[in-house]
Amino acid sequence: MDGQEAQNPAPYVSERGEAEIYDEDGVVLAPFLAHIGAAIADRDTLTLKHEVGDLHQSELGDVLEALQPEQRQALVELLGADFDFSALTEVDDTIRQDIVDRLPNAQIAQAMQALDSDDAVYILEDLDQQDQDEILAQLPFTERIRLRRSLDYPEETAGRRMQTEFVAVPPFWTVGQTIDYMREDNNLPDRFTQIFVIDPGFKLLGAIDLDQILRTKRAVKVEEVMHETRHAIPATMDQEEAAREFEQYDLLSAAVVDENERLVGILTIDDVVDVIQQEAEEDLLRMGGVGDEELSDSVFSTSRSRVPWLLVNLFTAFLAASVIGLFDRTIEHIVALAVLMPIVAGMGGNAGSQTMTVTVRALATRDLDIYNAWRIIRREMGVGFINGVIFAVLIGIVAATWFQDPNLGGIIAAAMIINMFVAALAGILIPLLLDRLHVDPAVASAVFVTTVTDVVGFFAFLGLATWWFGPV
Amino acid sequence: MDGQEAQNPAPYVSERGEAEIYDEDGVVLAPFLAHIGAAIADRDTLTLKHEVGDLHQSELGDVLEALQPEQRQALVELLGADFDFSALTEVDDTIRQDIVDRLPNAQIAQAMQALDSDDAVYILEDLDQQDQDEILAQLPFTERIRLRRSLDYPEETAGRRMQTEFVAVPPFWTVGQTIDYMREDNNLPDRFTQIFVIDPGFKLLGAIDLDQILRTKRAVKVEEVMHETRHAIPATMDQEEAAREFEQYDLLSAAVVDENERLVGILTIDDVVDVIQQEAEEDLLRMGGVGDEELSDSVFSTSRSRVPWLLVNLFTAFLAASVIGLFDRTIEHIVALAVLMPIVAGMGGNAGSQTMTVTVRALATRDLDIYNAWRIIRREMGVGFINGVIFAVLIGIVAATWFQDPNLGGIIAAAMIINMFVAALAGILIPLLLDRLHVDPAVASAVFVTTVTDVVGFFAFLGLATWWFGPV
Repeated sequence: MDGQEAQNPAPYVSERGEAEIYDEDGVVLAPFLAHIGAAIADRDTLTLKHEVGDLHQSELGDVLEALQPEQRQALVELLGADFDFSALTEVDDTIRQDIVDRLPNAQIAQAMQALDSDDAVYILEDLDQQDQDEILAQLPFTERIRLRRSLDYPEETAGRRMQTEFVAVPPFWTVGQTIDYMREDNNLPDRFTQIFVIDPGFKLLGAIDLDQILRTKRAVKVEEVMHETRHAIPATMDQEEAAREFEQYDLLSAAVVDENERLVGILTIDDVVDVIQQEAEEDLLRMGGVGDEELSDSVFSTSRSRVPWLLVNLFTAFLAASVIGLFDRTIEHIVALAVLMPIVAGMGGNAGSQTMTVTVRALATRDLDIYNAWRIIRREMGVGFINGVIFAVLIGIVAATWFQDPNLGGIIAAAMIINMFVAALAGILIPLLLDRLHVDPAVASAVFVTTVTDVVGFFAFLGLATWWFGPV
Repeated sequence: MDGQEAQNPAPYVSERGEAEIYDEDGVVLAPFLAHIGAAIADRDTLTLKHEVGDLHQSELGDVLEALQPEQRQALVELLGADFDFSALTEVDDTIRQDIVDRLPNAQIAQAMQALDSDDAVYILEDLDQQDQDEILAQLPFTERIRLRRSLDYPEETAGRRMQTEFVAVPPFWTVGQTIDYMREDNNLPDRFTQIFVIDPGFKLLGAIDLDQILRTKRAVKVEEVMHETRHAIPATMDQEEAAREFEQYDLLSAAVVDENERLVGILTIDDVVDVIQQEAEEDLLRMGGVGDEELSDSVFSTSRSRVPWLLVNLFTAFLAASVIGLFDRTIEHIVALAVLMPIVAGMGGNAGSQTMTVTVRALATRDLDIYNAWRIIRREMGVGFINGVIFAVLIGIVAATWFQDPNLGGIIAAAMIINMFVAALAGILIPLLLDRLHVDPAVASAVFVTTVTDVVGFFAFLGLATWWFGPV
């Protein structure tokens, strides 16, 4: 009990435990936010510490995101040493940088010491070199060495994401000694599920899950119950690949080792869940023609980041337009062609992007490989042909009725079958080819597929019409 | 050491440990597969048990997927009781059903007893009612009750996904008693990270992480170190919502409780990772106009599942075509309009889908809410306008040069600004509106957005041209 709680009749923990800060859609409740906002305006640190001090880091992150920029800054200042910096790992990059940039380096250095090393690195890595150096210089020696080591590994590697706090014991210890050690040592990580076994040179020998420790008699030596760490992760491994190891082998944590197989840190499943989310998000955004952008980005940086994709599409749009230009005399003669031609191109585009979406996703999850590629290509050709015939009949009838011209119906039907079949082929072969060329299929497939379906759609429809109705 | 290893000079574990079955892209190595294929053809069960018996369930799943259908069946039969049924939770639905359908129910019932309940339910839930009943009838009483309870919860709920094996102790036990119990009891789950504390009626009182147990002196009572389980998950909660709890609070496992707050099972992070993957995949596929399809689906079922989306698009394509039809006299007169009009519509479509992709994703991750919606709407309007101006200038110059007509350049530029601005608005407002109406924005947004950008694009361009050049 501290003084603060004495002022407040309701027991603190249970109040926080019961009070929900979210509505049923997971949005921070407006009254709660107004309450915090008022306390910030009043510079009422007692209320703030009471209401915010006990929030989970992700809850505090959501509150920060919901506040106005100047309120965020004020909240961090008012809370002072009570502000949980790990909440900064839960907010948008832009918001985090905005907050951190305005804090004195001394305060950041102070805060870093309370964080797990992975959270500290997450916050430090976006700072410029000078600030980073200044902050690191103010840290105790071991802390500095640990963070520096993580920061020296490239971005998006296991080494950059790892936590350097872990429990490691020598192989000749007994289970009993290990348990006693954990009961005495106050310097243990906040949470752990595995104990590592190392030799005097920190070389990784094995690991033991905590449930295994608890099942084993005290007198047994750890080397007898440890298992080989088949899934030790090199510090330089890409985080996406590390995430795949976690998924495949249902790992909760894994040892990270340097080039000499020395244990340098651990990766934990909660970091990996973030990586998985991030990678799935990247694929989705890339397929939608969007790069690494954040909701908190400004108008100009968003505009700038989207222009390149639109430029590429503009180029391919002119390509398609010039195909139409080849047949301008025919269109002048039969204007119905201009009315109908976007249907052929558009339906091809939709069919192509169905196939492409399935292919890109299957490549990302490694479900599509040499063992089923031919079967899937054959299947997509079959689907393209069948759906082509179905929609050819539909469109043919509608077009013939609309323009009172059975010839036109026949021509658009034929063009439709051609384009839907080509769309299916393009939808699968283009991502496969890009993947083989080590180009990310999520980024580049859409533009190639729609170029193919536009060009082929216009060319097939207008070309067939010119051939049938004769040059004019 | 068993007889098998004696025949083989290299020690078994290390051979398996070192031998990689994947190439660097994560594809099963062809020589390994050929080796297995040959052993299946020879009905060489010794080799099969040796090579396959020790694989992780996900590795065995990958091998099954890479084999031919008849080889899969033969492998399962040849391995008999040595076949690890949990591998079936790692393969495509179609492949799993194909394998399970051909197995006698008695064999499935036998296998179910070796599985964790969540894996057993995963396999049983897809069987028809009669097979399910027959299999359950052959199980021991407690097992049957447990699986039946899970199966009684609706699909995609926490109750359906939960594992019914867990460790629970009464509150008055000491830490020492608890550790002794775990050392004696051979009926513990394979892997666990938490112990639950329950009253005699199975009502959940709290939980203790294993590291907490290991840090605590033997004499301390469990109720003194347990923490309140704020994140107990109702069995009827949707799995996606449960996954969100795991993500938000970095949980490794969570108690699942029934309507009387009795502990009925646990959810573990590895199941949740699958759910997260699945949900991200669903969003991606839906945005690409694809429903729940699997790579192993046949041509006909794939074709059938994709037709509805194409039909909807056909309808909107006719809508756009009829807008063009309104201006057929103008097009007849100035055929350049027909050449250029897909550019205006297409660029709008691309810009709209950029905004839409960002919006749909932000809604799915709950990053977009009432606190930032207005800011994001304003931002997108700004981006739409700026990019509209940029591309208007580009297209205007190209069109004017191409057709030697500055008027045409001005008209297409004006249409472009209008359409890109409308595209941005549609890209954000349509998903927001659908979300408010509780329609999944990932499914329905794309078709509405492209309808808007097509219709507005054609109407603005052809309408402006008709107004400028006058009716003909």
